[in-house]
Amino acid sequence: MIPISDIKTYFTTLQDKLCTAITDIDGENFIQDDWTRELGGGGRTRIIKGKIIEQGGVNFSHIYGDTLPQAATLARPELAGCSFQALGVSLVLHPHNPFIPTTHMNVRFFIAEKLRCAPTWWFGGGFDLSPYYPNREECIHWHHTAKTLCEPYGTNVYPHFKKNCDDYFYLKHRNEARGIGGIFFDDLNEWGFESCFSFIKAVGEGFLTAYLPIINKNKQRTYTPAQKDFQCYRRGRYVEFNLLYDRGTLFGLQSGGRTESILMSLPPVVHWCYQWQAQANSPEAALINEYLPAQDWV
Amino acid sequence: MIPISDIKTYFTTLQDKLCTAITDIDGENFIQDDWTRELGGGGRTRIIKGKIIEQGGVNFSHIYGDTLPQAATLARPELAGCSFQALGVSLVLHPHNPFIPTTHMNVRFFIAEKLRCAPTWWFGGGFDLSPYYPNREECIHWHHTAKTLCEPYGTNVYPHFKKNCDDYFYLKHRNEARGIGGIFFDDLNEWGFESCFSFIKAVGEGFLTAYLPIINKNKQRTYTPAQKDFQCYRRGRYVEFNLLYDRGTLFGLQSGGRTESILMSLPPVVHWCYQWQAQANSPEAALINEYLPAQDWV
Repeated sequence: MIPISDIKTYFTTLQDKLCTAITDIDGENFIQDDWTRELGGGGRTRIIKGKIIEQGGVNFSHIYGDTLPQAATLARPELAGCSFQALGVSLVLHPHNPFIPTTHMNVRFFIAEKLRCAPTWWFGGGFDLSPYYPNREECIHWHHTAKTLCEPYGTNVYPHFKKNCDDYFYLKHRNEARGIGGIFFDDLNEWGFESCFSFIKAVGEGFLTAYLPIINKNKQRTYTPAQKDFQCYRRGRYVEFNLLYDRGTLFGLQSGGRTESILMSLPPVVHWCYQWQAQANSPEAALINEYLPAQDWV
Repeated sequence: MIPISDIKTYFTTLQDKLCTAITDIDGENFIQDDWTRELGGGGRTRIIKGKIIEQGGVNFSHIYGDTLPQAATLARPELAGCSFQALGVSLVLHPHNPFIPTTHMNVRFFIAEKLRCAPTWWFGGGFDLSPYYPNREECIHWHHTAKTLCEPYGTNVYPHFKKNCDDYFYLKHRNEARGIGGIFFDDLNEWGFESCFSFIKAVGEGFLTAYLPIINKNKQRTYTPAQKDFQCYRRGRYVEFNLLYDRGTLFGLQSGGRTESILMSLPPVVHWCYQWQAQANSPEAALINEYLPAQDWV
């Protein structure tokens, strides 16, 4: 028997913890919108427009229904006719300061059930970092934190989930990674429920360990209008990824999800500019040539 | 025998004419990039960052190959193994002034050929308008121009292509039209080549008749920072449409098109804001409630 209420309790507690940690640094509170889904379930969307976080959201949702949407059963026809529940916490933070990277974190659980059958369930999630003016030590810290939390689950876990992340957050039309990666996993059930759930908790905790020091190290740094422009230009890549490729975004919008909660992932101010080119040997060129290509960080 | 070189000559001449007309009003010249496509063909991309047009492009391309990309033959399996040519002119203009609407215009020709078979060919295209602070007379003028150019081809042409446009430029996840429409058509060959080609020319000319007076009427108007913000916010819908739905954009990016030429359609500065709401009875509410819902304009 899968203890769904325990997962739900953990996810809502995690949402609280993430928001509290961000508010502690930022000084600004989140606003909260509770919403319900006509076909079953609902969510708790929290949005911050802060002093450090220019725009960000930490969303919890729990949706369920008697039958899976058709889009979901195309890839897994064995789930046709199942009732389902999907729970998750999603975080996206777009800081003002271009020295603080944009980040994304997600943990989610899915279960499909049919009478007289064992349920099908899995966890998914991860976290990834999209810096503008990256710092090598911070990238190493980010990946080291990810590796450390994965280690109790097997030595191959971090390399596997790190590669998933590099493969997933990739803009094919730009031949470019969205950021410096992190970990990404889906369909996780092979370790059994208890281990998977404890791993998910480690991801939730690990995210703050990975990200908060990077905010703290950079939040006082001053930046030029040109550096802010570069951040706004690079945010365009974030929009392109989320609207062209991100499965969660596309599935959410196609399946009648709450548009404003899904698109809270988009940055507050974005620039597009034809044929923008970094100057040779500039920090902007370093991001693209040295940091974004997938590499071993730990 | 389809005179492809005549179409190409017309399209490049149209590109010149459009650019000249815009430069005459704006004062700024277009920059030009010629590019070639590894698999066959190439294009001439022209970009303006002007005094009236904040960012815009007028692109010509002519691509060809010995076999159609697989993505193109999925919907039309009878074209498998055909050689093909695709030619087109695409225009997108994002003005500085929020009283001048964003506009998009496109004309295109496609032909697929196989030995000892009659070629398969069609034209497509249209133009549509995305205002921020619309004016009823200008919307009527826009649609009246479209209707007038369609009339020689049959009384049903404008209503049919106008409805295509309303259906196509629609953001399902917002339950909202991208703009006030215009005309949109594809797979056009049923009138025979001569009539179709002369219609395409009428669309090319008609666009300037429809749009230039709207620039001229509004280019001197002053606007507030709040009105500029609203324009930037609404431009987000333009991005969402192009990256989530636009077939030309998605097909171009998926088939290895020139990314910078395709994404020149995206606006220079865009804002996203959670749960933005227009004030009751404001001009911003009028756009959404009075102008965007599909309606009979002529």
